[in-house]
Amino acid sequence: MLYIVPTPIGNLEDITYRAVRVLGEVDYIACEDTRSSGVLLKHYNIDTPTLSYHSHSGRAKLDKILDMLKNGKDVALISDAGTPGISDPGYALVSAAIEE
Amino acid sequence: MLYIVPTPIGNLEDITYRAVRVLGEVDYIACEDTRSSGVLLKHYNIDTPTLSYHSHSGRAKLDKILDMLKNGKDVALISDAGTPGISDPGYALVSAAIEE
Repeated sequence: MLYIVPTPIGNLEDITYRAVRVLGEVDYIACEDTRSSGVLLKHYNIDTPTLSYHSHSGRAKLDKILDMLKNGKDVALISDAGTPGISDPGYALVSAAIEE
Repeated sequence: MLYIVPTPIGNLEDITYRAVRVLGEVDYIACEDTRSSGVLLKHYNIDTPTLSYHSHSGRAKLDKILDMLKNGKDVALISDAGTPGISDPGYALVSAAIEE
């Protein structure tokens, strides 16, 4: 399953208990910038493997994530701040995941 | 200081770490319905004293809260679900607190 997880904009405490739980439970976290997200994940002691997925990621990376999902893996998508969606690379992934 | 604290709509996990910290640190929590909010507060082991403040609360109750604020007390305002604001009794309290 693909989880779209909102992350803090500015204050690390501005994240919900559900979001932190999901980030700790999934198999992979697809990050817009693994270094930026690393600060957040470290703060909450989350050691889930990360992979980068951003606006310059090609179709190969998108297919890799789709394959994970098809194989029953749980993946959380996060952006640098806020909710992944229309205005960032999340759009292509969410669209493709719905089509599959 | 008056804190306006958003609370979960349906899923108790949908509250931020900052919100839970603030609810635990303030002197009083003004609740739209102390019984509804009791479920949330108990879930997070928050034992801050509560007081009811809702659409049928009169000016006396509002003045009591304003007095607490003037005396340096910290009060968090929460509604039954979501963010207290325009469409609930929070409006009168926030307006009055700004005027003071």
